[in-house]
Amino acid sequence: MAVGWFYLSVLALCSLGSICILSTIYWMRYWHGGFAWDGSILMFNWHPVLMVTSMVVLYSAASLVYRLPQSWVGPRLPWKSGHAAMHLLAFLLTVLGLHAVFEFHNHTKIPHLYSLHSWLGITTVFLFACQWFLGFSVFLLPWASMWLRSLLKPIHVFFGASILSLAIASVVSGINEKLFFSLKNGTKSYSNLPSEAVFANCAGMLVVVFGLLVLYILLASSWKRPEPGMQAEREPTRTRGWVGTPEVMLEEARGLAEPLLQKRS
Amino acid sequence: MAVGWFYLSVLALCSLGSICILSTIYWMRYWHGGFAWDGSILMFNWHPVLMVTSMVVLYSAASLVYRLPQSWVGPRLPWKSGHAAMHLLAFLLTVLGLHAVFEFHNHTKIPHLYSLHSWLGITTVFLFACQWFLGFSVFLLPWASMWLRSLLKPIHVFFGASILSLAIASVVSGINEKLFFSLKNGTKSYSNLPSEAVFANCAGMLVVVFGLLVLYILLASSWKRPEPGMQAEREPTRTRGWVGTPEVMLEEARGLAEPLLQKRS
Repeated sequence: MAVGWFYLSVLALCSLGSICILSTIYWMRYWHGGFAWDGSILMFNWHPVLMVTSMVVLYSAASLVYRLPQSWVGPRLPWKSGHAAMHLLAFLLTVLGLHAVFEFHNHTKIPHLYSLHSWLGITTVFLFACQWFLGFSVFLLPWASMWLRSLLKPIHVFFGASILSLAIASVVSGINEKLFFSLKNGTKSYSNLPSEAVFANCAGMLVVVFGLLVLYILLASSWKRPEPGMQAEREPTRTRGWVGTPEVMLEEARGLAEPLLQKRS
Repeated sequence: MAVGWFYLSVLALCSLGSICILSTIYWMRYWHGGFAWDGSILMFNWHPVLMVTSMVVLYSAASLVYRLPQSWVGPRLPWKSGHAAMHLLAFLLTVLGLHAVFEFHNHTKIPHLYSLHSWLGITTVFLFACQWFLGFSVFLLPWASMWLRSLLKPIHVFFGASILSLAIASVVSGINEKLFFSLKNGTKSYSNLPSEAVFANCAGMLVVVFGLLVLYILLASSWKRPEPGMQAEREPTRTRGWVGTPEVMLEEARGLAEPLLQKRS
């Protein structure tokens, strides 16, 4: 049952993520003339598409790698490498997405980085870069001790979820900003909710729903790879999600409690 | 040391929360003529102030009640009541903040709820209302069983954090939108980053920093009221934040493992 729910959620996530990307492409093609890579407004159109694809959908897929039950058994290194590689790909697409808007601003003499959307967006990308380099150095390269890794892991997980939240806030403010730019006049003004406004607002809300679903699976679901330390969870009812036998759990509680007892005696 | 860190964080949060509110007030007073309750643009000025005060600062304070060590001992009911009462106050101020913008739109014949900011904002307030009524019915009224409460608690905590994240995304898109409205012309346009733009962008970024700090304390810190069930945390290093003696921990692991063993035998 739990596994059925899990794969249903994966299916829902894949569909929703694809719809987010496709609706951003459709928005830019149908109402804004499609794409080019020449510094014109058509080059700007890559910006929302690449940011939603990289910072929201691909970033989420990379973050959820450890929730696949296949990753719970066997060696960690291939999964860690996959996690890092997918995030690297997401980061490279993010840089392309930034390049698209910077080139457009250069060609049309619009100042860079003035809106709150851009301040938040660039901060999010900066945090993503720090997170990737820290993750790569501490969790993938072999030099860091288990102590350092287990100290930094909750921080890595927290910032992973935070960067996704900030990316979603950036996407929402970006869509809002773009609609105020492009829907200015008369019956086509944003406040009259023409079809473009309804479509792009819905796309923005879908990105929010997608992000919440990813954050739920990442932070609150019981689909987590069991840790080598203590396995039982805090809430008695959440033992449903606990993987392992009661003997193993008791053994691990002993392993955790006894050094503390010895240290004190 | 841990308690020292905790109170330092509380001090940082109180200061940062106050700065968020005061800078929103200053923005509206210094650049937008202050406040009134008459349907004019001065009535709109209450909207950002009340939303930041209620949905960000007061909501966060209400959410963090269970992180105070004083709440970890003794009966839960007074703390639960405080948590619910503070959230109710936050909700009432939110409704006032919505009334301010709806009245302004009514008086100036601007359509309601057309921007993505407003769609996200109203969804956030709706989720907040559902969360409050569900929390009140299940966790404060005496009818619900322990089983139902412990089933719903992780969902209540997840939506609590999600609503704060959505509120922050709404605030960011709202500040961005307001600056595009008010900074339109010539040297004072948003893209030239006049003093108002720098000030309000900084206020928006401070709200984001405040929100991340609150979410960190809420989700990732070890300052949690110990649950009646299993007390140890997943990561071995996080036992630093564990409250209780190793004997108690071992005893609780036995209490949790033995019924499972008996059930199987």
